Amino acid sequence: MDQQKATNIYWHDAKISKADRERVNNHRGFCIWFTGLSGSGKSTLANEVQNLLFERGVRTYVLDGDNIRHGLNKNLGFSAEDRAENIRRIGEVAKLFADAGLVVMTAFISPYREDRDKVRQLLDKGDFVEIYVECDLDVCEDRDPKGLYKKARAGEIANFTGISDPYEAPDNPELIVNTSSTPVEESAQEVIRFLEEHSYLTAEKLEKTNPN
Amino acid sequence: MDQQKATNIYWHDAKISKADRERVNNHRGFCIWFTGLSGSGKSTLANEVQNLLFERGVRTYVLDGDNIRHGLNKNLGFSAEDRAENIRRIGEVAKLFADAGLVVMTAFISPYREDRDKVRQLLDKGDFVEIYVECDLDVCEDRDPKGLYKKARAGEIANFTGISDPYEAPDNPELIVNTSSTPVEESAQEVIRFLEEHSYLTAEKLEKTNPN
Repeated sequence: MDQQKATNIYWHDAKISKADRERVNNHRGFCIWFTGLSGSGKSTLANEVQNLLFERGVRTYVLDGDNIRHGLNKNLGFSAEDRAENIRRIGEVAKLFADAGLVVMTAFISPYREDRDKVRQLLDKGDFVEIYVECDLDVCEDRDPKGLYKKARAGEIANFTGISDPYEAPDNPELIVNTSSTPVEESAQEVIRFLEEHSYLTAEKLEKTNPN
Repeated sequence: MDQQKATNIYWHDAKISKADRERVNNHRGFCIWFTGLSGSGKSTLANEVQNLLFERGVRTYVLDGDNIRHGLNKNLGFSAEDRAENIRRIGEVAKLFADAGLVVMTAFISPYREDRDKVRQLLDKGDFVEIYVECDLDVCEDRDPKGLYKKARAGEIANFTGISDPYEAPDNPELIVNTSSTPVEESAQEVIRFLEEHSYLTAEKLEKTNPN
């Protein structure tokens, strides 16, 4: 589903560049991609990180499995093809938001390594910060905030990640947080520390590493 | 293609709201939807408006037929169904950007009234500013910046808007600019004036009209 169909297309040079927006915002535009089991706390963590960044004046947005599924991707189901297209579209939208100078956070199970790696390739180098939200399956199942594990165990939901469909943990994510053992506020602080240490929250690094 | 397929979906309340972002940005988040023939100057005008807004510190982004077609919508062609899906996806993305507090501008021919009206319905009331970029067909064809009219006349492109496919002008757009008779810089100023007069470039109106 991801081949180039449309022809007669030409690129425009937008006059305002990503670097222009980053200078005004005083931070980089990039994507934080949270991946993990249902119930691992991806959305909660993304919103907690957003709160902390918002307090600092950082421009952010959270793309969320639930609100994207009601809108852009409402015409997709859960077949293998639709799942791949789901992640592809989210990756393309994340790319637009990063280009617009925002810190865009995505909170999707995104269980397949291949789909996530395609998004990594899609974004500019360094603009894809993959964070594995590690959480024991039994903890997720115990939380079961949406009652989905219960339904999956009862056979009411097919191909449910962790139960009847695999979850492929990232081989080499930028960061791992563990929400079985760590409160979400602490994990959020870990994310902020990572971003600070890697100069994501300043526009300075860009000027240093790209003197031209 | 726009029915709700996915089930087991729940809404999250994002903790940072659109109103929070608008207060920080000191302007509203909304969509300016430019519609008009190929060659009418939609992209040029959108970028000119963006330049003017950027100077004022307004957060903007331009979604463009050309760059969207290379990314999010690269798996869509030009069949009637694909054209409708093209506009639907762009509308959904525009909604996300408006919700993120940005002034998002879209520059697509978007020839069908029905497709544009669906986007209007999708967005919150007042968040869809439809601007008809009026331009005589012979002027567009004379400009022919991408050589597409020539190809369409030669029969190399089927269903080309204005030649072999209809363009349905808006019945009741928020603004009409005429790029046959008016230089783009002047049209851009007309757009800015409209936004000022309707309090789009301040967060104040929100507080006045929504005291609760």
